[in-house]
Amino acid sequence: MVGYDDIRVAQDRLAGHARITPLLDAPQLDAIAGRPVFVKAECLQRTGSFKFRGAWNRIAALVEAGEAGAVVASSSGNHAQGVALACQIYRIPATILMPSDAPRAKVDATRGYGAEVVFYDRETEDRDAIAEALAVDRNAVFVPPYDDPFVIAGQGTCGLEIAEQARERGVEAGTMLVCCGGGGLSSGIALALERDVPSLRVRPVEPAGFDDMAASLAAGERRAIVPGSTSIQDAILTPSPGRITFPIARRLFGPGLVVPDEDALRAMALAWRWLKIVLEPGGATALAAALFQGESLADGPVVVTASGGNVDPAVFARALSLDTA
Amino acid sequence: MVGYDDIRVAQDRLAGHARITPLLDAPQLDAIAGRPVFVKAECLQRTGSFKFRGAWNRIAALVEAGEAGAVVASSSGNHAQGVALACQIYRIPATILMPSDAPRAKVDATRGYGAEVVFYDRETEDRDAIAEALAVDRNAVFVPPYDDPFVIAGQGTCGLEIAEQARERGVEAGTMLVCCGGGGLSSGIALALERDVPSLRVRPVEPAGFDDMAASLAAGERRAIVPGSTSIQDAILTPSPGRITFPIARRLFGPGLVVPDEDALRAMALAWRWLKIVLEPGGATALAAALFQGESLADGPVVVTASGGNVDPAVFARALSLDTA
Repeated sequence: MVGYDDIRVAQDRLAGHARITPLLDAPQLDAIAGRPVFVKAECLQRTGSFKFRGAWNRIAALVEAGEAGAVVASSSGNHAQGVALACQIYRIPATILMPSDAPRAKVDATRGYGAEVVFYDRETEDRDAIAEALAVDRNAVFVPPYDDPFVIAGQGTCGLEIAEQARERGVEAGTMLVCCGGGGLSSGIALALERDVPSLRVRPVEPAGFDDMAASLAAGERRAIVPGSTSIQDAILTPSPGRITFPIARRLFGPGLVVPDEDALRAMALAWRWLKIVLEPGGATALAAALFQGESLADGPVVVTASGGNVDPAVFARALSLDTA
Repeated sequence: MVGYDDIRVAQDRLAGHARITPLLDAPQLDAIAGRPVFVKAECLQRTGSFKFRGAWNRIAALVEAGEAGAVVASSSGNHAQGVALACQIYRIPATILMPSDAPRAKVDATRGYGAEVVFYDRETEDRDAIAEALAVDRNAVFVPPYDDPFVIAGQGTCGLEIAEQARERGVEAGTMLVCCGGGGLSSGIALALERDVPSLRVRPVEPAGFDDMAASLAAGERRAIVPGSTSIQDAILTPSPGRITFPIARRLFGPGLVVPDEDALRAMALAWRWLKIVLEPGGATALAAALFQGESLADGPVVVTASGGNVDPAVFARALSLDTA
């Protein structure tokens, strides 16, 4: 189990290590959305995504317990970098299992933080089996990307900051849109807001075709999706919600929203133009829903996570080529 | 005259209106520079550049004095947006004189903040004469881009924040590189640091071919340059240092540095990749010097201003196309 108090403990562990990221806004985005929009710029977090929060909390807790001999993780790239940097700081060997089609920027950056990268084929190989074998082989602890109480509590520190920053702007109620893969960030934020700003309601936002969380929420139980295609929103492509995250989601989340790749690219271009921040497609998912799906949202302000900015130049150039002026 | 106390007054005026921008860093940039590099991300300021600080301080002071009937300013685009937004908030009509070759993003954004834009031809028309005529015609106050005590004091608030943020990181001495046009930001920062972190020495950084501040510092008196070419670092193309800024510069600045356009583009790409912020060429000038001219700098950490991020997509795409991996 994981709760509000665990997030407070995580906040103490992260102090001086993770950044307190700004909550940004721009009148031009408000005009597009037809309501106030606030953007939690987690792309400015260390390693370029919120994932450093959960990775640091998990690994710092292992170190406190004397259990951090070596670490294995699997990730398309953001959790990879978070784990790699946390391990580099603690001088712990890290091995990261990445899909062979992960963005090159993410692979290079993960190696840059000193981790060994091992590839697997998304289509033909069993990621979890390989990760387990690696962990046994290296006598290492496996650090899950989302379905872990320490990881969820670490991501929840983002929610504590959002609560404080939103109230400073006078936001006491509204919609909190979170880019959602397995639900680590969204469930952590929901646990923080439940206590601190209960009328700011979390709704998960997923890529079109990868709406396992939305489908599970609608069904009232965990559902897996069978993807018929792929998506450039690579950071949040998951088959099903987590065993730990889903009960939190079911209790606290509103209905899920779904964003096509084209809208994620448009949101990237608008964040570039008006906020001067760099988002990756899967980090722009929530902003896209805020800007282009206002009819599906309750009245009032919207807060969104801009979860990450680790993107290859060619994909970013594609977003810039869209005319958003 | 303008001094430290004026900057403190400006800070009070800006509280709740301007943003306190973050001081960012990344180990990958430290590795390139061979020393710690800290980046004051003024691109995240309202209107996408530091210019909102000085514009707000000048216009708020006019309002306090009951002298703000209408405003005229001339600018290639960042001061334009700062003045336009400050006037929009105060509901004061603003007219901005812009060169006809100003970046489209800057023209559009300035109009978006409700200002009227009037164009002039850089080659054939006298900007100052046109601005004066406009001010007379509209019974308006002219708000200068840098050579004004209130504007300098407003920009100096950036220096107060740098002092506090640098000390939080343990930086008590080193080099402060500032993107420099007429010297408003650099002289304001120098006045703040003189009191708060006197061993952090300001050095101005200018585009190659537009090194009027460096030449004036070397000569010990104001010198004008006759540009033989142009530069994409449009935000900081000035013919000579200001009458008010130069005595401050002469007393407090170290020697100037000069950056070619290609290096500004490379710095933009690296800030995109490792800091996840959007810089325009003239906002990346100081970072370029920190990264690529380390041999010209005293030992120790470097703090740089990332002064603005208002750039056309095509120029940004050109930066991204450089291989910085």
